Amino acid sequence: MYVKKQRLLTPGPTPLYPPALHAMMGSDLHHRTEDFRTAYRSALADLKEVLGTSHDVLMFAASGTGAMDGSVSNLFSRGDKVIVCSAGKFGERWVEIARSYGLDATVLKAEYGDVVTPDRVEAALAAEPATRGVFVQASETSTGAQHDVEAMGRAVARTGAIFLVDAITGIGTMPLDIDGWGLDIVVGGSQKAFMIPPGLAFLTISPKAWKFASASSLPHYYFDFAKEKKNAEKGESSWTPATSLILSLAEALRYIRRIGMANLVENARLLARATRAAVAELGLELFSPGSPSSSVTAVKAPAGMDSGVIVKQFRDRFGAIIANGQGSMKGRIFRIAHLGYFDFVDLFAVIAGLELILHAQGLPVDFGSGVRAAQNVYAEAAFAREAAV
Amino acid sequence: MYVKKQRLLTPGPTPLYPPALHAMMGSDLHHRTEDFRTAYRSALADLKEVLGTSHDVLMFAASGTGAMDGSVSNLFSRGDKVIVCSAGKFGERWVEIARSYGLDATVLKAEYGDVVTPDRVEAALAAEPATRGVFVQASETSTGAQHDVEAMGRAVARTGAIFLVDAITGIGTMPLDIDGWGLDIVVGGSQKAFMIPPGLAFLTISPKAWKFASASSLPHYYFDFAKEKKNAEKGESSWTPATSLILSLAEALRYIRRIGMANLVENARLLARATRAAVAELGLELFSPGSPSSSVTAVKAPAGMDSGVIVKQFRDRFGAIIANGQGSMKGRIFRIAHLGYFDFVDLFAVIAGLELILHAQGLPVDFGSGVRAAQNVYAEAAFAREAAV
Repeated sequence: MYVKKQRLLTPGPTPLYPPALHAMMGSDLHHRTEDFRTAYRSALADLKEVLGTSHDVLMFAASGTGAMDGSVSNLFSRGDKVIVCSAGKFGERWVEIARSYGLDATVLKAEYGDVVTPDRVEAALAAEPATRGVFVQASETSTGAQHDVEAMGRAVARTGAIFLVDAITGIGTMPLDIDGWGLDIVVGGSQKAFMIPPGLAFLTISPKAWKFASASSLPHYYFDFAKEKKNAEKGESSWTPATSLILSLAEALRYIRRIGMANLVENARLLARATRAAVAELGLELFSPGSPSSSVTAVKAPAGMDSGVIVKQFRDRFGAIIANGQGSMKGRIFRIAHLGYFDFVDLFAVIAGLELILHAQGLPVDFGSGVRAAQNVYAEAAFAREAAV
Repeated sequence: MYVKKQRLLTPGPTPLYPPALHAMMGSDLHHRTEDFRTAYRSALADLKEVLGTSHDVLMFAASGTGAMDGSVSNLFSRGDKVIVCSAGKFGERWVEIARSYGLDATVLKAEYGDVVTPDRVEAALAAEPATRGVFVQASETSTGAQHDVEAMGRAVARTGAIFLVDAITGIGTMPLDIDGWGLDIVVGGSQKAFMIPPGLAFLTISPKAWKFASASSLPHYYFDFAKEKKNAEKGESSWTPATSLILSLAEALRYIRRIGMANLVENARLLARATRAAVAELGLELFSPGSPSSSVTAVKAPAGMDSGVIVKQFRDRFGAIIANGQGSMKGRIFRIAHLGYFDFVDLFAVIAGLELILHAQGLPVDFGSGVRAAQNVYAEAAFAREAAV
């Protein structure tokens, strides 16, 4: 009926940065040439720079789960005692991976929407001094909650264990002082704050974690950290790399370096704050009010309404794809993303659309009230910043 | 100086089919939507059709090596007795993977350029009735040799073992009767005859191999065949899929279905025959004369010349990337590819360029003589076919 632009407004894949998308058109290059080595070296160096770490950076043709898998199979041995923080679907994934490889996992569980507190990690470490690893999500995408990885990292750093952080939606949405906080493994993926399609995973690995790699006895082949490091030093990957995505990432990293990683994080943080203000104004409840992440805001569906209705109406009325809950949360929450190539214009439109959808479902809505709440957050932050210049 | 178009003329990545490349621009779609499910189902169905099999087809965000790794970790157990045919760099990769997972591998080795004959496989199977698997390359890309997977497959089918075929460069360059010959696992990759960039791996898996999956006790997570099959039936992948490459593959498969898989194979076969005729005319020697593949023709560098000179001159004079030898073959051979989106015009140009390069290196060359030999192969095949219509 009306024009409906297709818009991807989910917490991964995220909206694509057009020049990075277009860079994939240059894919007719061979991965054992100087042209590729130059591009690959530059992507790895820029990635290291925006992550602000001195640790090694490794990259894989895989989704983020592949790098999580490799972090277990490369660094541990069957029977190793580990602690897994699980506060949602991705916490459960760490548990599954650890158990698939025969690790002896103690699970610190939090209800969906809640988080595992650092003191629970400290207590578990104290209770089991032989612990070899602690696993967590920086941001639990399924619930929109954020863990205190700084406090956890500092606690783990005082022990012989390593700290493994799935930061797939954490990178670019929250400060992560990888070296300073003792984040031994930090896993990321291309389709999140990096604004490009899925298919590339990467991770940072600390000197402490490299010692674990030497001691590990689990079998692995495709994900081989030591081999990958050796090849990366030559500007190559161990196996045929996903060249199209590496070209795309290189272009996105140029953009991220230009605006600055701190500003990208601040952008997500402000969008998240504006979203919380807007949904509060509309009388909706946050799903993770205690420790909300800046990657995605999970909102409870109004009483008696399936959140799928909101998701479907966004698609049918406005062509926009927003995220439903995952797993057992499906139908109960919907999620508004903030990571990567998202801006305030996207958010104003999402809130205006949400107001119309709630109204269409028979809820009392004062049109523009949610948008105004978001505008106020923008005005307060941006105008203050401009005045300061 | 002169215009030099950049041309990728290697056996993987291969020349890209432009509409498939352009299809990646539609990557702003979410993988948990009906739009994606439709695209994924259709790609899987088309892949199954062009492979001509009734077996299940699974797909992974990974390079081909990932699917090879998964074939070991999903189907075997530590200590399993297996036979690995190794006739080059990729045969050695099967050996490495098998040993990484603690399999008890008997290696049937052939010199680079040679092949493992089916009778050696039969003898090894007879000598060890407890053998659980036989591994081979359909086409050994590093040497341009081709294995007789039909005879091997029929031999393995009479035993309790399964037959695992790395057909990464075999698919689309040689007939492969997956069901009829007993090819239990057939591994392929996107950047070969499928004409798209690297980053997608896939495989076919027989009912016999599924029984091995149930019995396997090796740990794995990212590559999980049973989970992937269950999800594929819903039109989904277990983890976030490489959406850009799946859209690209879907477009390439439309092209392959249109020209027909048998014609794609015949195209490679004729290009290979024409290449052999041309290099013979130019006084050069084949590296794998006994069992040459149609995926790539490996040619020995002229006496006293490093093959790297030919590779470098192709790039410097003509902007074209051709393949050097790999590993210990580097400097000794160069390789002219035939798989995927290669045509006779590409080949005529490569041969003409080769003639000029050999001349520039001081070798006596009758300009056009190699091209004429290739033209004769085209004329004989194409004109006969046209006359028959």
